[in-house]
Amino acid sequence: MDSNKIGHHISGQFNKELEDIRNKVLTMGGLVEQQVELAMQAFSTGDIEMAELVIKQDNQVDALEVEIDRECTQILALRQPAAFDLRLLLTVIKVINELEIVGDLAERISKLAIQSADSDGKIDQYYEIQHMSNLVKDMLHRSLDAFARMSIEEVPAITHLDDNVDREYASIIRQLITHMMEDPRNITRTINVLWTVRAMERIGDHACYICEHLIYMVKGEAVRHLSREELEKKVKGG
Amino acid sequence: MDSNKIGHHISGQFNKELEDIRNKVLTMGGLVEQQVELAMQAFSTGDIEMAELVIKQDNQVDALEVEIDRECTQILALRQPAAFDLRLLLTVIKVINELEIVGDLAERISKLAIQSADSDGKIDQYYEIQHMSNLVKDMLHRSLDAFARMSIEEVPAITHLDDNVDREYASIIRQLITHMMEDPRNITRTINVLWTVRAMERIGDHACYICEHLIYMVKGEAVRHLSREELEKKVKGG
Repeated sequence: MDSNKIGHHISGQFNKELEDIRNKVLTMGGLVEQQVELAMQAFSTGDIEMAELVIKQDNQVDALEVEIDRECTQILALRQPAAFDLRLLLTVIKVINELEIVGDLAERISKLAIQSADSDGKIDQYYEIQHMSNLVKDMLHRSLDAFARMSIEEVPAITHLDDNVDREYASIIRQLITHMMEDPRNITRTINVLWTVRAMERIGDHACYICEHLIYMVKGEAVRHLSREELEKKVKGG
Repeated sequence: MDSNKIGHHISGQFNKELEDIRNKVLTMGGLVEQQVELAMQAFSTGDIEMAELVIKQDNQVDALEVEIDRECTQILALRQPAAFDLRLLLTVIKVINELEIVGDLAERISKLAIQSADSDGKIDQYYEIQHMSNLVKDMLHRSLDAFARMSIEEVPAITHLDDNVDREYASIIRQLITHMMEDPRNITRTINVLWTVRAMERIGDHACYICEHLIYMVKGEAVRHLSREELEKKVKGG
């Protein structure tokens, strides 16, 4: 299955509408990826201006969500699509919701970065957090890439990454708690780090949800609550 | 606008389908409300069996989400509805997603309750947490009630409650941090309370999102990213 699937309609106008929606989702995805990148940079460098930029960008992301959602609804009403086209539109509505939430999480990280910027408490876990953050960004990028190509081939690799993220998350949280116990003066600062790490872990989850929506679109089956193994089986064969 | 809006179709079968979906959403809502109630009880009493019940219930909630989503998609494909019916179905798809997330959050609280059950650290903030929890349960109940009646009249009152929840949330978090600073032995236990309070605050947010979806259904306009004041204006008049 590839994105040519979109170009099969007799009505050139309908093709154009679907292609337009797909492009807007990719624009929104790019913007959200940038938000996550900048939010994590702002968090690790304490760059307040960068954090404020992410917060501002969230308005653009929200506006794109509303616009794409409205266009999907209009097409549903006017074109009354069936089969793959219907699933494509319903999937887009769900994917942009995931992206909007990821944007909110990036905004949250930025606000935490601003709150933490004036404290000079050194967090020993920056290296681990950076690594986890890279995994999460990779997951988000690859899930958007899979959506762009309308291909589910990469999905098992992406969900495997989430298992790594979850492991690293648990380990970082344990370390942060130890850090707080060692010196209670670290607590306020460390709680902000805790929220940040949690927000990142959730971004990884939403990248997985994008993959699940994609499988529904391509295969026509809901896989939302399947185990990793069941999901992998669906992708590979039946 | 009331639920009679559903019974206006020439096709009695179509009326029946929409009514059936509405009832299933209400069943799912009732189940999720119960999950939240039991999760909070398990958290405050340390009742592990109750917590495990909530975790089990989540499978039922997930199954209902998949079932309702599939039925909505089928109706979209076969009946090709327009106007209010189309908005109703798209709203249901979004509302059940919010409910599924609330169910996951109740499950999360239950898992935290199980983790915390063997620790005997007394949390001084139980009274405040109980109060915040009551506000959140009230928000969820009233938003589901508004959905059942397809009426947006109550929406401003519900979103005002969320402002109270946010204030109480901030105050509880401050108290929990003080509690940790006073005695670092409290930290591990208190972090679990912190996650629980955060999960409750998010349940309040999702009750608000249900209200926003409802406004879209009734008014046909996206209000997802409006301020409280703009939202209130939409409900009242324009």
